[in-house]
Amino acid sequence: MSLTENIPYEALEVGQKVTVTRTIEQRDVLLFAALSGDCNPLHLDPEFAAKTLFREPIAHGMLSGALISAAVACNLPGPGTLYVDQTMTFAKPVKLGDTLTVEIEVLEKLPKFRVNLATRVFNQHGDKVVDGVAKVVAPRKTVQVQQVELPPVTVG
Amino acid sequence: MSLTENIPYEALEVGQKVTVTRTIEQRDVLLFAALSGDCNPLHLDPEFAAKTLFREPIAHGMLSGALISAAVACNLPGPGTLYVDQTMTFAKPVKLGDTLTVEIEVLEKLPKFRVNLATRVFNQHGDKVVDGVAKVVAPRKTVQVQQVELPPVTVG
Repeated sequence: MSLTENIPYEALEVGQKVTVTRTIEQRDVLLFAALSGDCNPLHLDPEFAAKTLFREPIAHGMLSGALISAAVACNLPGPGTLYVDQTMTFAKPVKLGDTLTVEIEVLEKLPKFRVNLATRVFNQHGDKVVDGVAKVVAPRKTVQVQQVELPPVTVG
Repeated sequence: MSLTENIPYEALEVGQKVTVTRTIEQRDVLLFAALSGDCNPLHLDPEFAAKTLFREPIAHGMLSGALISAAVACNLPGPGTLYVDQTMTFAKPVKLGDTLTVEIEVLEKLPKFRVNLATRVFNQHGDKVVDGVAKVVAPRKTVQVQQVELPPVTVG
């Protein structure tokens, strides 16, 4: 189990960034399908996807949303953050095997611990696949939080 | 395997709605944690959550995002929809055991098959937990799409 330390409001600076990198595997798309109920063949059936605009299976757009939310909740500002609002523009498709870099950047510090964050996702070619802004209430104090060890999740 | 039929652009009418109902279980929160990497104890540890503002474990906000995206992709407009943009305001927490109703409503039909949809999530008390708008490119034609049967996903 790992300890996660947050970055409280007063330590946040405009321009401050974190990045989290993650390769999207078949397993991630299957888990997202199981969780959301979106079992469209565009995401899961290479033969079907081959006949679409995308030519091959693509990840569900909101899978990038899940990664953005985790980067906000675990990295910047991290534990204790209240998630108020998120915008997302899905600029390009994410393909299976793509390595995504989620970038969170402090855009603005507002009164009452409110902070606006740029939330961008890039693929391994440097293309921006998702752009957006998160509005959060940042934590007031530094805390170290024990992340919970999950039971094993098996697919297939 | 179930067949899903979409609602193409020309059949969409402003004010048209669908709702999808789903109860949020511990399993959903565990799957979201596994998928996103957000293993914060606020979502997973009742003892920790009891000491927070929320008093009990709450679902990750973006889990509602996953349900919204599935309702857009499978129900209104359904298969063939291109997801362009999503906004989400997280108005109230979602607790484990809450029964969520995702409501998708056609707000505006725009040129070039573009459609704006209201995307709202209510809990079993009728409280709006998430509000937002999805911008999509609706499908041009009616299609029936076979949903893919997933391999079993086991937690624990």
